[in-house]
Amino acid sequence: MEILGGPLFAVAGAGESHGPGVTTIVFGCPGGLRIRREEVQRYLDRRRPGSNRHGTPRQEADRVVLLSGLYAEGEIDCLLSGPAVSIGGGADSATESYEEGFSTGEPIAALVLSTSQRSRHYDQFAGPKGQVRPGHTDLVKYHKSKGFVDIRGGGRSSYRSTISDVIGGSIARIFLNEQFGTVILSSISQVGPLRTELSLAQHFASVAQQQRSQTITPEQIAAVEEKLDSAEIRSLDAEFAQEAGELIKRTRIDGDSLGAAVEVVAVNPPSLVGEPLYQSLKVRLMGVLGGLNAVQSCEVGDGVQVIARKGSENNDPIRQSGYQANSHGGLIGGVTTGSPLVCRVGFKPTSTILKTQHSVRKNLEEIDFALDRGRHDPCVGVRAGVTLESRLAIELMNAALMHQSGRVDASNFKLF
Amino acid sequence: MEILGGPLFAVAGAGESHGPGVTTIVFGCPGGLRIRREEVQRYLDRRRPGSNRHGTPRQEADRVVLLSGLYAEGEIDCLLSGPAVSIGGGADSATESYEEGFSTGEPIAALVLSTSQRSRHYDQFAGPKGQVRPGHTDLVKYHKSKGFVDIRGGGRSSYRSTISDVIGGSIARIFLNEQFGTVILSSISQVGPLRTELSLAQHFASVAQQQRSQTITPEQIAAVEEKLDSAEIRSLDAEFAQEAGELIKRTRIDGDSLGAAVEVVAVNPPSLVGEPLYQSLKVRLMGVLGGLNAVQSCEVGDGVQVIARKGSENNDPIRQSGYQANSHGGLIGGVTTGSPLVCRVGFKPTSTILKTQHSVRKNLEEIDFALDRGRHDPCVGVRAGVTLESRLAIELMNAALMHQSGRVDASNFKLF
Amino acid sequence: MEILGGPLFAVAGAGESHGPGVTTIVFGCPGGLRIRREEVQRYLDRRRPGSNRHGTPRQEADRVVLLSGLYAEGEIDCLLSGPAVSIGGGADSATESYEEGFSTGEPIAALVLSTSQRSRHYDQFAGPKGQVRPGHTDLVKYHKSKGFVDIRGGGRSSYRSTISDVIGGSIARIFLNEQFGTVILSSISQVGPLRTELSLAQHFASVAQQQRSQTITPEQIAAVEEKLDSAEIRSLDAEFAQEAGELIKRTRIDGDSLGAAVEVVAVNPPSLVGEPLYQSLKVRLMGVLGGLNAVQSCEVGDGVQVIARKGSENNDPIRQSGYQANSHGGLIGGVTTGSPLVCRVGFKPTSTILKTQHSVRKNLEEIDFALDRGRHDPCVGVRAGVTLESRLAIELMNAALMHQSGRVDASNFKLF
Amino acid sequence: MEILGGPLFAVAGAGESHGPGVTTIVFGCPGGLRIRREEVQRYLDRRRPGSNRHGTPRQEADRVVLLSGLYAEGEIDCLLSGPAVSIGGGADSATESYEEGFSTGEPIAALVLSTSQRSRHYDQFAGPKGQVRPGHTDLVKYHKSKGFVDIRGGGRSSYRSTISDVIGGSIARIFLNEQFGTVILSSISQVGPLRTELSLAQHFASVAQQQRSQTITPEQIAAVEEKLDSAEIRSLDAEFAQEAGELIKRTRIDGDSLGAAVEVVAVNPPSLVGEPLYQSLKVRLMGVLGGLNAVQSCEVGDGVQVIARKGSENNDPIRQSGYQANSHGGLIGGVTTGSPLVCRVGFKPTSTILKTQHSVRKNLEEIDFALDRGRHDPCVGVRAGVTLESRLAIELMNAALMHQSGRVDASNFKLF
Repeated sequence: MEILGGPLFAVAGAGESHGPGVTTIVFGCPGGLRIRREEVQRYLDRRRPGSNRHGTPRQEADRVVLLSGLYAEGEIDCLLSGPAVSIGGGADSATESYEEGFSTGEPIAALVLSTSQRSRHYDQFAGPKGQVRPGHTDLVKYHKSKGFVDIRGGGRSSYRSTISDVIGGSIARIFLNEQFGTVILSSISQVGPLRTELSLAQHFASVAQQQRSQTITPEQIAAVEEKLDSAEIRSLDAEFAQEAGELIKRTRIDGDSLGAAVEVVAVNPPSLVGEPLYQSLKVRLMGVLGGLNAVQSCEVGDGVQVIARKGSENNDPIRQSGYQANSHGGLIGGVTTGSPLVCRVGFKPTSTILKTQHSVRKNLEEIDFALDRGRHDPCVGVRAGVTLESRLAIELMNAALMHQSGRVDASNFKLF
Repeated sequence: MEILGGPLFAVAGAGESHGPGVTTIVFGCPGGLRIRREEVQRYLDRRRPGSNRHGTPRQEADRVVLLSGLYAEGEIDCLLSGPAVSIGGGADSATESYEEGFSTGEPIAALVLSTSQRSRHYDQFAGPKGQVRPGHTDLVKYHKSKGFVDIRGGGRSSYRSTISDVIGGSIARIFLNEQFGTVILSSISQVGPLRTELSLAQHFASVAQQQRSQTITPEQIAAVEEKLDSAEIRSLDAEFAQEAGELIKRTRIDGDSLGAAVEVVAVNPPSLVGEPLYQSLKVRLMGVLGGLNAVQSCEVGDGVQVIARKGSENNDPIRQSGYQANSHGGLIGGVTTGSPLVCRVGFKPTSTILKTQHSVRKNLEEIDFALDRGRHDPCVGVRAGVTLESRLAIELMNAALMHQSGRVDASNFKLF
Repeated sequence: MEILGGPLFAVAGAGESHGPGVTTIVFGCPGGLRIRREEVQRYLDRRRPGSNRHGTPRQEADRVVLLSGLYAEGEIDCLLSGPAVSIGGGADSATESYEEGFSTGEPIAALVLSTSQRSRHYDQFAGPKGQVRPGHTDLVKYHKSKGFVDIRGGGRSSYRSTISDVIGGSIARIFLNEQFGTVILSSISQVGPLRTELSLAQHFASVAQQQRSQTITPEQIAAVEEKLDSAEIRSLDAEFAQEAGELIKRTRIDGDSLGAAVEVVAVNPPSLVGEPLYQSLKVRLMGVLGGLNAVQSCEVGDGVQVIARKGSENNDPIRQSGYQANSHGGLIGGVTTGSPLVCRVGFKPTSTILKTQHSVRKNLEEIDFALDRGRHDPCVGVRAGVTLESRLAIELMNAALMHQSGRVDASNFKLF
Repeated sequence: MEILGGPLFAVAGAGESHGPGVTTIVFGCPGGLRIRREEVQRYLDRRRPGSNRHGTPRQEADRVVLLSGLYAEGEIDCLLSGPAVSIGGGADSATESYEEGFSTGEPIAALVLSTSQRSRHYDQFAGPKGQVRPGHTDLVKYHKSKGFVDIRGGGRSSYRSTISDVIGGSIARIFLNEQFGTVILSSISQVGPLRTELSLAQHFASVAQQQRSQTITPEQIAAVEEKLDSAEIRSLDAEFAQEAGELIKRTRIDGDSLGAAVEVVAVNPPSLVGEPLYQSLKVRLMGVLGGLNAVQSCEVGDGVQVIARKGSENNDPIRQSGYQANSHGGLIGGVTTGSPLVCRVGFKPTSTILKTQHSVRKNLEEIDFALDRGRHDPCVGVRAGVTLESRLAIELMNAALMHQSGRVDASNFKLF
């Protein structure tokens, strides 16, 4: 089953890049959370193609509608002021959708249509003589499905499927923020060979040490968000962002592509969450972040750097106010310590390039492959941040509910 | 997670009775199955309110659109000839949907809107002073959700949620029929105190014995389907159906309601499927059939009758052509024997009645409860058959995939 | 996966009837529950062959050892006073086990060996010419496993596998009793054609109505348990129990067998537990109770009787003190109301009989089947009660943890 | 639930470092696989403390017994020649265990006792004034469990729990090898600051390119295994291994510890396995490898190196004989390509060191922490290889069964 998170908070998704739309069902949001469509839309807008100067030129409105799981007694008319949805045209075939409401605990469904004009020329890729794009899923998915695969724009393996991640993540973020003050951020730390030494982890560790408290204030968070928003690409380091933006432009003109690394951090996470061992939060985060399309590495805390260290350098000292350093990245034994959760994710250079490459047809006939036409996103890392943040949020929320399940309070089990 | 079936073939659903619509995602249909929207629609039409003289008078078109998981190379225009879907109005906000295609193995999403005019007067039920309908989920769901519950028309607990069951079931039925010739049928066997002795199980057992083969031909099945279709209520016994129809009418006028029993049978099921013990097909079927809204009993094979028997009367003799009787209902040790799968499901009388009853407000203040207004379906069993068939199909398909998973054939694991 | 319950509280089992032993792992017991090995043993003793005059004559000590998941600081020596376990003989190959301790939240493993002398003559059943016992899993499991099946005494499909159910159930019962005062009981209500009208459900409903409170006191429960313990077979009706015992004896002498029905009831259950719809507590209970070996029917509350009723007769009135009747069996919409949970489970007559029957060899060659030798339990219902109680407890505990997971209390998420 | 892998092939584990033993249940091995206890034992011996000059000095025999899920008609006596198991002493309390047999498809249970003499002095760590070892789970697990945690030797969070991983992995390896010729190997590639440039991935890529075939012969594999076995620490690079061994010795004497990196590779993996997207094999492998105790980074294929590359350098060319390079690490879109599966896992330096560190008591009182006594394993990476191999095997086998489930062959569903 295509489920992110779970078993308590989970997100199911469906939909291909060039199909009618992306459908999402979010399970397990406890009752009573105020959800506004605009808030979900705002996260989706960050993910959207065209939202960013350096992403793919595809333009999609990606307007989300919420179709279930919300309610507010006495405010039904207001609730139903979201965009109308219709099937088949005709006035009696339309219905309102939810603009905002309180979660009821029931599944929350959301729909985003794919309405941009789509080319219908896929001859280069169609059928057993269809060509295989190196680095893409074309070949494996063709044979895995015995030929029954949607070849248009990557089909389900497209980044477009991450709409579901972002919708689910946005609900988790609202919940985590309301319950614990948690905020999840990401910063691009590498583009091709260019790196920055500035990191969210380091920044918040300094703040914590200065104020002798791990709790980061909304103002401190807002200051960081402003930096991220205003940079050329979403990074804490404006100068690096500027250079990286230039490099991406040049690389696009070259018809080539670039890898990238993104740091993702949860500030003010709930403590003590994460099951130990086989289903630990570390297992879960490594999986969902490291398993995202195009990702080839995932690190927690200080990541690959800790390999070269001695224990006496690496163990984080503990004081009454909390851990005094965050080499551990907020997780010990797969359980949260209250220090910021820190992961770093490495993306390979986008597989689609305009240079000729050795490849095959789906029937394994050898060819020199060159793309006939197609959109080209030279650095996928540039807009992957919101997806990583969303996946982290989904797992963190599920882990929080898991932890709560073990703290039974009999007063919650009374009716009469 | 609100998932039917699984882990291999599974159906996720979302949507409340009077909300914008019901969203469904079907997971795990193997690639290459030809699926026509009209076939799914046909099953939905059987479930639809108003499709039947004896159901609720609510009128809904319940038109389904398929939004993902289908494809057909070179036939894309034909594929996309399903009803258009739009969000927010405006031509550029619309997209086509799938009229038919081959499954790709990816999740299949479907949407049914709720477009009938809805009353917006729920004052009788709203808030902490809202009244509780005896037999309904009003009270438990209000307190379980701490008051954040959609009170309109039963919310998520309405029979409207079974749209997802039927969509998922229709895909399973197409698959099972194509692979194994399996057909799933149901017949109403009791309405209130009226019973029929005719049963599908008995009918097909006679056929099998006469022809000395368990395989039921399409013609033999069609003959039964015709009987079911033409009866006043869906039952093998036309006379009983007639009387039951009369009784339902009288009971509706009385403002009262009736229980019912429905027999559900899978003819030509695949043999050897079902995991033994804790996840056996018997566990799964008892759960999904016996756990449906308003159901209070579920029987396999000869059900409660076997309690009073001796072993020497009850053990089904075995010959080379198969089991010579079907007291076991097609399952031994939770595994299919190839005899028809037989279950019988008992529904309580519909909880909504027009008589005054002792009840409380949600804050537990005692009241004499009488319904201000509302639609009234005097016998839910009358249109539950297609839902039961669907749930059986979903579990049977999942069990078939489970069985296949253990029969590894290395030729399926080659690429180069 | 062979898992009972879950995803929060779950029981995994392994082990065949005549194999070395039955291994059990219990997942998800929250930390801090005092567990005594003797308490687990006491439930196992009720399940044990030979514990009962009317069960199979097989004698097994079925001594349980607890191997993980328990702890008590400062009391380690006392903790480790359980039976020693050794592998391979030799003093240095032995270890202590836990006699009692507090749960830590980690998985609790338990082992019961099969040490009774086993006949090693299975020639009648071995190989492709092995004979098939009608009503047993012999044929389907042989072909499902392509011949790789343990034929000794029913293998994994034997009632011996329910040792795991009882171990998991005993931990759930300790938890539910400590948290909510819940007690789970069962009473045999039918043996072959003999029935009793006395029922636990009716008894506790009367008590509740008299005292105008659903809470049953420990003394009231103890009085019922005494009746159950002292009856010839475990039933509330001593006279019926006496007759049924006689009938079982006569039937054993005859070489025949009998069906049975068992009522299982949870008194003082936690209210508001159970997810609605697809994973409702009704779905789950119908599955685990109705799916047990040899069961062919499962009813909730008034079960099959409600089919013939009108709504006006069947809806349970509600007053401030709770539901005034329990036709609903403690579940509305799959959620607990606080009334006793009531199920009734119907068992087929034991398949093993001494009469000659039509059957086949595993290669489908037809034979007249008569048992060469073997133990014979004429009425499996007689000792199934503790298994049913255990399964109900497991699902109820899991559902309670699920409910708690949605009631997040931020004070549980602090470390510093 | 503490489950590795699944839903088809899965491993459940239980048991603490200093508790009575480690219990394991392996689910979902298809019937007919020949399993020898000695083969499982051989893998366990590689994991065992004391098996290696550079691991912890703890000595455990770690003798495994197999208790269920195996069978062989007509060979029962041979089957039962495994070590005897007894509970409570006394001849009638003992039973044989399985020395070898064919899998039946039922759960396979295994038990390893902890029989070494254990110190019972844990005063330094006990109770609310117990001291917290920096880098260990002491603090989070104490508060997560509200004080009910086994403090002895890391409790369940000890590496001893990986016995279950290795048992499950050994069965998966036997299966994968028999079906596909798959072999799983690991090589240590970094110890503290020392690195080797030799890698299994590179070695097998060269072999494949030379012979123009991805299939690695048993002889080619045996040659590599010999190198790994004979090195001072398990690495392809004997010289590096020698130096690293020296460094570990010096670091132990210093009372300090070292990080390490381990490359793990599956040669001749089945092609086309892995579900796309949320449950892709990449998600699963990143999770189980990257989530292991003490791991802080996980890379697939060329890992972090690909970030700095251009697409034109990074895309692996495809020819008729397969991928011509393996930057992708055998996974595209989370599905296997038939190239070796390649992961690299980074371990932090062992948390236990002999130097004084800033820490707290469990009640958060600040202390200078120094270990009173205790065993000390200066570099956990040295014996983690077999655990990583096992986890990879478990996920790969599960993914293979998942793939097979979608390729339904009706001939597997016949009984009569």
